[in-house]
Amino acid sequence: MNFCSECGERVSQKIPEGDNRLRYVCDSCETIHYQNPRVVAGSLPVSGDRVLLCKRAIEPRYGYWTLPAGFMENDETLTEAAARETEEEALAKVENLQLYTVISVPGVDQVHVLMLGDLVDDEYSAGIESLEVELFREDEIPWDQIAFRAVKMTLERYFEDRKKGVFPVYNLDIERW
Amino acid sequence: MNFCSECGERVSQKIPEGDNRLRYVCDSCETIHYQNPRVVAGSLPVSGDRVLLCKRAIEPRYGYWTLPAGFMENDETLTEAAARETEEEALAKVENLQLYTVISVPGVDQVHVLMLGDLVDDEYSAGIESLEVELFREDEIPWDQIAFRAVKMTLERYFEDRKKGVFPVYNLDIERW
Ligand SMILES: [Zn+2]
Ligand SMILES: [Zn+2]
Repeated sequence: MNFCSECGERVSQKIPEGDNRLRYVCDSCETIHYQNPRVVAGSLPVSGDRVLLCKRAIEPRYGYWTLPAGFMENDETLTEAAARETEEEALAKVENLQLYTVISVPGVDQVHVLMLGDLVDDEYSAGIESLEVELFREDEIPWDQIAFRAVKMTLERYFEDRKKGVFPVYNLDIERW
Repeated sequence: MNFCSECGERVSQKIPEGDNRLRYVCDSCETIHYQNPRVVAGSLPVSGDRVLLCKRAIEPRYGYWTLPAGFMENDETLTEAAARETEEEALAKVENLQLYTVISVPGVDQVHVLMLGDLVDDEYSAGIESLEVELFREDEIPWDQIAFRAVKMTLERYFEDRKKGVFPVYNLDIERW
């Protein structure tokens, strides 16, 4: 950040009065420009003993497999965001979405929120950000080609929890790297 | 938003190619300035049959009671953010933090994440953003002076769940108003 989005003058980094962190502050109008983590919302679409993965058509991690997920937008709920991302990336509908993993990733200033959902009518195909979309049984998952650690952690827990038939909500952290 | 934070030139609202939402886009350097929901993280500190509330010393909702919570910062986890806010607003430490309510509030573009925690040593006092900090039994809660709906929903569920001794994680939405 170089300039104030309100008045267009230069910003500099300083600790505002009453604060204890460096912020971008406008030298002219004194607006403080806070920067905060972003939420990545998505789903783990389930069809019987298979789960839906998308092969990424975009960077980062082009060509690796992921769950349909993306940045939550203003004016939507987490559930709406997870359903929207599933529609956009996998051209699939999910129902009965339930919160599953909440994963803090401080290294990239993100919180990933993934929900279990039932894939509707086994209908899916590659959205514009996906090369392929496929259903995988546990023994078919391309574990060494999973795009993100949050996705891998979620899939690992899912297949363990399936054996018990209980799906708690997890609050997990991915350490800084 | 009026100006580009990268180059200082004017921004205008347009739908970028491949997108379907209005974004602020720089007329000069073409940077797209995304705006996303912010995470409010906090705790519900428990001491025996009492919970800790803070009377707000700041707007909005000056003078109303709330749980210690505030905007999650970059470079921290949800658990760290909840503990930090509790220290800042109630000068209290909480341990054994566990995820409890995750509440989407699309009307203000926020996601509230509140965690149950054990208040350490019954030590607390008003931080700079609080007028008072007090422990309340269920029948002492000032229900008509609770600052935010997300806090009220969380407290209501907590006292119900106490009766059963089971504290599931809730994914709730507060409708637009
Ligand atoms: Zn300014
Ligand atoms: Zn620009």
